[in-house]
Amino acid sequence: MDLPQAPQPVDGPEDMAAPGAGVLDVVEFPPDGLEPRRPDADSGRAALDAIRQGVELVLDGRADALVTCPISKVALAAAGSPHPGHTEMLADLTGAGPPTMLLVGSGIRVALATIHVPLREVSTVLRAEDITHAAVAAARGLERFFGVERPRIGVCGLNPHCGEEGRFGDEEGRIIEPAIRAACEQSVEAAGPLPADSAFAQAAEGRYDALVAMYHDQGLVAAKFHGAHQAVNVTLGLPIIRTSVGHGTAFDIAGQGRADERGLVAAARLACQMVRRERARVREEARP
Amino acid sequence: MDLPQAPQPVDGPEDMAAPGAGVLDVVEFPPDGLEPRRPDADSGRAALDAIRQGVELVLDGRADALVTCPISKVALAAAGSPHPGHTEMLADLTGAGPPTMLLVGSGIRVALATIHVPLREVSTVLRAEDITHAAVAAARGLERFFGVERPRIGVCGLNPHCGEEGRFGDEEGRIIEPAIRAACEQSVEAAGPLPADSAFAQAAEGRYDALVAMYHDQGLVAAKFHGAHQAVNVTLGLPIIRTSVGHGTAFDIAGQGRADERGLVAAARLACQMVRRERARVREEARP
Repeated sequence: MDLPQAPQPVDGPEDMAAPGAGVLDVVEFPPDGLEPRRPDADSGRAALDAIRQGVELVLDGRADALVTCPISKVALAAAGSPHPGHTEMLADLTGAGPPTMLLVGSGIRVALATIHVPLREVSTVLRAEDITHAAVAAARGLERFFGVERPRIGVCGLNPHCGEEGRFGDEEGRIIEPAIRAACEQSVEAAGPLPADSAFAQAAEGRYDALVAMYHDQGLVAAKFHGAHQAVNVTLGLPIIRTSVGHGTAFDIAGQGRADERGLVAAARLACQMVRRERARVREEARP
Repeated sequence: MDLPQAPQPVDGPEDMAAPGAGVLDVVEFPPDGLEPRRPDADSGRAALDAIRQGVELVLDGRADALVTCPISKVALAAAGSPHPGHTEMLADLTGAGPPTMLLVGSGIRVALATIHVPLREVSTVLRAEDITHAAVAAARGLERFFGVERPRIGVCGLNPHCGEEGRFGDEEGRIIEPAIRAACEQSVEAAGPLPADSAFAQAAEGRYDALVAMYHDQGLVAAKFHGAHQAVNVTLGLPIIRTSVGHGTAFDIAGQGRADERGLVAAARLACQMVRRERARVREEARP
């Protein structure tokens, strides 16, 4: 890639006042380098190392937010990480409770009640408390970082047409409705269960400020419908502000100069907006 | 609703040459009428009756296509229908093999490998032959009724990130890949399994002429993302041309004058296009 200005190595985020001023090189690569397009234990360790040091910089107050690129879950596993993805790892590294993945894209916001779960296990793994947790985290996150007052949260059903009164599945009455009631008891304006095939269009039309999706693809198909390059993944429930690109590693086009930087730019922009809102809130609270 | 012109009762489709010329009243209603917003055995029987007679008119060659409004699956069941939906019923009424539901909307076309299945049972019910059948039906349907030459069919995975090499589910390798190979052997340009969360955006950008979704909401969330009023449901594999609105009954707004007719208009328009292509094909084949 031709960069307008080569990034300069710096010693810490403090040296990066000017845009494009520096790259903090935190990772020890193996002496022979890494083989492109081949996720393995070495590249997995390099990724883990970079994430750990990024988290530390933000926890220490030396940086305001963490913005991450995609990682290979295969490389992570090869490096011995027990976490199926970034989101779970960051909760562990920051000592946070269960995090909530919020996708922002295609004009909608979607929080996930389950993340990296095989489809056949979603119904078994899905718990009312996780749905409630996602609804509450989405509402609080929208108030705090997105400036939305009294966010309206729509909660999706699990089955086609929400199961049509139990004919195609009963999780709506058994798990999702109690979860919505529990969210409402925590002063969240939560509505549902909504048939997923109309909920996302309604959210795009502005009827909901965020949706809670029951599983990965239910939420991500919609949030990435207008292109992965504009979808940003926000982790709520961490002690740090963290955004990430919504796309994957795309090893198939590695080294060809065809990578699309718009996802990373969108993730960085959204992190900046969240930092500004957070700073404004802190200033407001500090007023005498 | 204020109609510009009150629909006139007619004796058969032959009397309906002029646009808006007539309504064929085929259903015997109970003497006391039906109670609005209350799907029951009476309204279910009325719907069944209308569908049966509509199918007969097309099978007899008195009408060119069947365009249907939404039906209440609760009312259908109350009326004793064994079918979970329109699509399955039409296959039965026309004596066709397994039909394929193709959703056309939001700039994409999606065929479903499974339809009205509880999410927890999708993995168990999903069969390679049904995926192949949907891919082949989509390809043949696009050639015949949509004028697409050599349609490129993308086949979605079932699990998040297509299971990431078996880490989140193994149906991609076990069921979907063999299904794609079988479709290719039938001269269909089928590709996949594609991670669902990027496949729909790629289809919207024109990379695929149609996708095969593994389950109801995987396909319908995307096809209806730009609004249910513009999504049309096409049934492929029947001996008749049939389209339907992509939305549901919306009993919650019944009688309020707020119903949106655009879905029905889109379904009728698409049926007309399909009829024109079919007539052109028949004329072409009849040329000496």
